[in-house]
Amino acid sequence: MDFTTKLRALVARVETGLDRYVPAPDTRPAILHAAMRYSLESGGKRIRPVIVLAMAEVLDPTARHDPLPAAVALECLHTYSLIHDDLPCMDDDDLRRGRPTVHKAYDEATALLAGDALLTHALGLLLSAYASEPALAAALGADMAEAAGSRRLIGGQVEDLAAEGRTDVPVADLEYIHLNKTAALLELAFSMGARLGGASEHHRSVVIGVGRDLGLAFQIVDDILDATAESATLGKTAGKDAKAGKTTYVSAFGVDGARRRARAHADAARDALRSLPGDLAFLVALIEALTDRKK
Amino acid sequence: MDFTTKLRALVARVETGLDRYVPAPDTRPAILHAAMRYSLESGGKRIRPVIVLAMAEVLDPTARHDPLPAAVALECLHTYSLIHDDLPCMDDDDLRRGRPTVHKAYDEATALLAGDALLTHALGLLLSAYASEPALAAALGADMAEAAGSRRLIGGQVEDLAAEGRTDVPVADLEYIHLNKTAALLELAFSMGARLGGASEHHRSVVIGVGRDLGLAFQIVDDILDATAESATLGKTAGKDAKAGKTTYVSAFGVDGARRRARAHADAARDALRSLPGDLAFLVALIEALTDRKK
Repeated sequence: MDFTTKLRALVARVETGLDRYVPAPDTRPAILHAAMRYSLESGGKRIRPVIVLAMAEVLDPTARHDPLPAAVALECLHTYSLIHDDLPCMDDDDLRRGRPTVHKAYDEATALLAGDALLTHALGLLLSAYASEPALAAALGADMAEAAGSRRLIGGQVEDLAAEGRTDVPVADLEYIHLNKTAALLELAFSMGARLGGASEHHRSVVIGVGRDLGLAFQIVDDILDATAESATLGKTAGKDAKAGKTTYVSAFGVDGARRRARAHADAARDALRSLPGDLAFLVALIEALTDRKK
Repeated sequence: MDFTTKLRALVARVETGLDRYVPAPDTRPAILHAAMRYSLESGGKRIRPVIVLAMAEVLDPTARHDPLPAAVALECLHTYSLIHDDLPCMDDDDLRRGRPTVHKAYDEATALLAGDALLTHALGLLLSAYASEPALAAALGADMAEAAGSRRLIGGQVEDLAAEGRTDVPVADLEYIHLNKTAALLELAFSMGARLGGASEHHRSVVIGVGRDLGLAFQIVDDILDATAESATLGKTAGKDAKAGKTTYVSAFGVDGARRRARAHADAARDALRSLPGDLAFLVALIEALTDRKK
């Protein structure tokens, strides 16, 4: 199966899982569940859940543990972070994935609570779906809480906000932001896939490193696209960083310097991944596709 | 030990636990961790964590499982819900526990993220503190995610907001709001205490019912105090419900009718509790104190 066909198949599996493992839109209160689904169904790239599925399959093609609930949980977590990030008191963004953000389509209170509910559901789904194997459930939940917590995902968001409008942010601080705001959830995707595939602790730590490098590459490419692409292509507002006077990899190293750094992280991710057993062709191609992406 | 002495001792234990099990205020990013602690340290009544400790102790005085991390996790969860509830897009409140709310003391973005971080920490703490007993950890986490989720705590908040300014809210909807917005976390407190004390499933379901009745009594008393007490006594803005034209137990049944209903729920909670083994004097006295409280 070629890369695009495989990617489409995995994305379709994620979409099916989102429908199955998120409460129906008429669940009381309907407005809340409709808002949760509105944001989940707006057609993101599904990178994180796809990585969970693909990583688990590489390590255990027999799928002793179904990775789909974990993949859905991670997409819920990622979507919560986007909803809260878009709120007026944060990035104040009207457009996300080419559609009005949740607080624009509904209202601020509903967006706030839909985000809270998706975060809670992400952890609850892990614990309920794998309840028959409590050690696995608890480990997946603990991984997620750490990656999403105050020292990682949220810590990165706090420093990202504090860096806004400052043109003198040191590169070390920029890296802290990217490591936590972006890489944390990609590390989590690889870590959850590894756990579900029954990986050794050694292999799990290797793929966490892959997630780290891929996360840095991904975020640098994000900075490059914000500086060079059009809003219509991106499906979100372009040129925000320059407008906000934000320090990015592009403002620090120029477009070419940023491209070289993204390339180096992508290469490191690919090389580390290749030390694993199993058929890695899809994941290697995914790293390339994310690094070369145009939106 | 009399009730007040015992309550003080349990509250002191909770405060010690909060300091021990929440990241230090200088943890990077310091502003986030300081905001988390600001809200946790503002001297609430600590009812929910006190119930966790007292319920576990009734059932297992030898404390095979230390209930303190679970008690702290529940207080983190409760505090997150208060921070988000106070935000301008929600209740827009400036005063909480007699001090400026988090978004007033810091700013909206920091309050939003401190709330997110406390919710994440609540679940993460349960999973890490009881990691050596994964079945217990996963069960506590699943209980919490359910009580705090879109069908319970958050569902109650959504319908509470929707009911604002409406004087024709049916009593059944008012009960839905109270059952979820208030009773869910009191049920959770009893359920977690029961699990930590090694209760049978029968006893756990009995005490969940105690939490339900106590939650309804507690919220009805809240409505009564909002209608009858002074802001200075409450430590938060009084008279908000009438000002907002909100349907409450007081607007539906009058102050005396609401008092009778609170009394009936408190009696039901006390009677159900007494079917349990162990020394229940403290918990019975706590139910009375909460029903007769003046703030």
